[in-house]
Amino acid sequence: MNIVLLSGGSGKRLWPLSNDIRSKQFIKIFKTENGEYESMVQRVYRQIKTVDADATVTIATSKTQVSTIHNQLGEDVGISVEPCRRDTFPAIVLATAYLHDVQGVGLEETVVVCPVDPYVNDDFFEALKALDEQAAKGEANLCLMGMEPTYPSEKYGYIIPKAQRGTEAQAAAFSLVDTFKEKPDEETAKSYIAQGALWNGGVFAYKLKYVLDKAHERIDFTDYADLFDKYRNLTKISFDYAVVEKEPKIQVMRFAGEWKDLGTWNTLTEAMDEPTIGDCVLNDVCDNVSVVNELNVPIVCMGLKDVIVSASPEGILVSDRKQSSYIKPIVDKIEQQIMFAEKSWGSFCVIDVDDKSLTIKVTLNPGHRMNYHSHQRRDEIWNVISGEGTVIVDGMEQPVKAGDVITMQAGCRHTVFAETELKMIEVQLGEEISVHDKQKFELEA
Amino acid sequence: MNIVLLSGGSGKRLWPLSNDIRSKQFIKIFKTENGEYESMVQRVYRQIKTVDADATVTIATSKTQVSTIHNQLGEDVGISVEPCRRDTFPAIVLATAYLHDVQGVGLEETVVVCPVDPYVNDDFFEALKALDEQAAKGEANLCLMGMEPTYPSEKYGYIIPKAQRGTEAQAAAFSLVDTFKEKPDEETAKSYIAQGALWNGGVFAYKLKYVLDKAHERIDFTDYADLFDKYRNLTKISFDYAVVEKEPKIQVMRFAGEWKDLGTWNTLTEAMDEPTIGDCVLNDVCDNVSVVNELNVPIVCMGLKDVIVSASPEGILVSDRKQSSYIKPIVDKIEQQIMFAEKSWGSFCVIDVDDKSLTIKVTLNPGHRMNYHSHQRRDEIWNVISGEGTVIVDGMEQPVKAGDVITMQAGCRHTVFAETELKMIEVQLGEEISVHDKQKFELEA
Repeated sequence: MNIVLLSGGSGKRLWPLSNDIRSKQFIKIFKTENGEYESMVQRVYRQIKTVDADATVTIATSKTQVSTIHNQLGEDVGISVEPCRRDTFPAIVLATAYLHDVQGVGLEETVVVCPVDPYVNDDFFEALKALDEQAAKGEANLCLMGMEPTYPSEKYGYIIPKAQRGTEAQAAAFSLVDTFKEKPDEETAKSYIAQGALWNGGVFAYKLKYVLDKAHERIDFTDYADLFDKYRNLTKISFDYAVVEKEPKIQVMRFAGEWKDLGTWNTLTEAMDEPTIGDCVLNDVCDNVSVVNELNVPIVCMGLKDVIVSASPEGILVSDRKQSSYIKPIVDKIEQQIMFAEKSWGSFCVIDVDDKSLTIKVTLNPGHRMNYHSHQRRDEIWNVISGEGTVIVDGMEQPVKAGDVITMQAGCRHTVFAETELKMIEVQLGEEISVHDKQKFELEA
Repeated sequence: MNIVLLSGGSGKRLWPLSNDIRSKQFIKIFKTENGEYESMVQRVYRQIKTVDADATVTIATSKTQVSTIHNQLGEDVGISVEPCRRDTFPAIVLATAYLHDVQGVGLEETVVVCPVDPYVNDDFFEALKALDEQAAKGEANLCLMGMEPTYPSEKYGYIIPKAQRGTEAQAAAFSLVDTFKEKPDEETAKSYIAQGALWNGGVFAYKLKYVLDKAHERIDFTDYADLFDKYRNLTKISFDYAVVEKEPKIQVMRFAGEWKDLGTWNTLTEAMDEPTIGDCVLNDVCDNVSVVNELNVPIVCMGLKDVIVSASPEGILVSDRKQSSYIKPIVDKIEQQIMFAEKSWGSFCVIDVDDKSLTIKVTLNPGHRMNYHSHQRRDEIWNVISGEGTVIVDGMEQPVKAGDVITMQAGCRHTVFAETELKMIEVQLGEEISVHDKQKFELEA
């Protein structure tokens, strides 16, 4: 199976765990059998590999997520990097061209597209295999998965199958699609459901050639590399609008298993295996309380009912469960610097902010190094607190270990290579400290 | 007026703002006219000075509070340091001896004793002056202030005056005391109040000689210095039990103004001038929510009702208002290292904890220095981030400013003197980092 997982952008609906640079699909919130926590993207990837060990997984995403994806999934996963966000049609075309030109997938081979973060069980991926096999038969140009609605939701588009509810045709796994409906109001949704309509969850399969053909109808490009170069100039358009709604030969497969979009604190915490993650104490009067604490100090909850508490280096949320879905406009107004970020080489966390200094804790993964770079307007001091590695400062190489201190004046070029996991306290000193004050250089061999 | 303010011990009833080393009376929670916040002790001290600019204020406290008291009240305030805690009789005797032998207060002069943290208006201190003047008349050996009860509280002792309720005698400012009653149950409290009883708030005045005489009856000592030396061996006994309840000649003054003990999060936040302190956002569905945030990241509250939220470097509390009074046993079980402390020279805050390192932010007040000291089992690195000063390392003096780095091996003696306010990021490195690993030395001139 060739699976393209669409990894959406960042957002603050799960603040303080998600923010401008940290997307919800990377939050480690699901307890695994070995007692560690995995993110939505790790969970989905593990499920795919359980159902189909040979599946080729490609994640279609922006550049900002590449480091985190490799940190969470390792180096084996394919990544189709979108140079900028251009909605789902360009993203799916780019990923399809990537599969063909970079991964060598044939024109007659099938591709399955799925969001990166559905909360589903293994049966969903079994159904995905069936969808893939159906696409291979070529009875239709597109095979969609339609989710059996559990309530008249206003947040999904609906698929009306030709096979009527309760008929023999409906009992068959696949049916032709009659029409697609935009996100309706609740009453309209009820009438759709009465007709046997299904949610459109953005899950579908096609033969690679089909999407490449559709792409060439709209976009003038030769191959993946050319498309990549032209990506910035493409028109923003959704795959549904550009392809699905115009295609007469579409089949839909009814899927009745669990399928959830964990997009709010309320839905996310409902899916947690335990009510709390991290250091916290709930007194026995608490009722229906969920806590996710990423800090290393305790959270104490007393006498709360239907409340969600979350703390990260970015801030603290305390919300009534239902209210939590209204978080976005509130946190969008909060201006704050990024306090935690994953990088290609590891991660950093801001631990002190002062007028003319910023102190961060840097963790480099073994075998990794940051870019060779300099800053114009700040000096830096590295205090190595654990691990071993090599620093390069203005071309001079030097081994470092816990206890070593490296001072770097503004303008001086520097990097550090981690042999083992390497942790440092980095003190930045300057009048105006900004993440944009950074020049990168090639490291001479 | 000679006022002795009894400053009680530490506790966790207001965790995470109070803990083993930080007492509730030092939490800065009351907004002043200039927009800054003051603590209970600062508020009371300011009120005393407003009513009686010449008042001599002495704070009876333990050694651990001395730094914080000087940081908050300056150097003018008198402090009677209890070598250890021995309940209120020894504490009041020691403070009285301190006033006589150190401050030169005469035997016939009066002393007023009051807790350090009542939440009162200026009229309370006007009443305190009246109490003091009454004690000077010598009609009784002790003059107590009795608080007009606002409800049948079970947490106060009661004073039954001889003057009956509604009589002419009761209308007079002072009445002789009939009896004292221990903390009653609610029904008994109601019957006391029906008799015109008053709360015993531990506020009273006496002539200095009276308490010294009582002291010599129970304790064999010559003067303040001698008493100080013997303090550790004194019997723990309350002033009420040792003196008040045995004294036949006591007058009580009825005080009907505001008088509150802000001992729980519920009472404390009710006294706050604004519902929130620090960086926080409440959505408009929040109702009766109080937030005290000492961290520099925002707290977002949504759809909460009757909830208190507080965050400090020690942890985060989220509690229903009424439940907040049950906090003590819960936080007593939490074992954690001290994350923030005020010292004689300034303060420190833990900003990172790792396996073999601890990173703290140190702020030295101008003109102050820490003890000359060394550690056996850890190296330290000072990263100066602002200010100017002088470090001494193994006897070698060196000026320092922002950007300077000082590395100190285990065993090396070191201190730093702050010329201006001086801030440093201190990285501690070692297998077992403990606050107890510290040897102090005299600094050679």
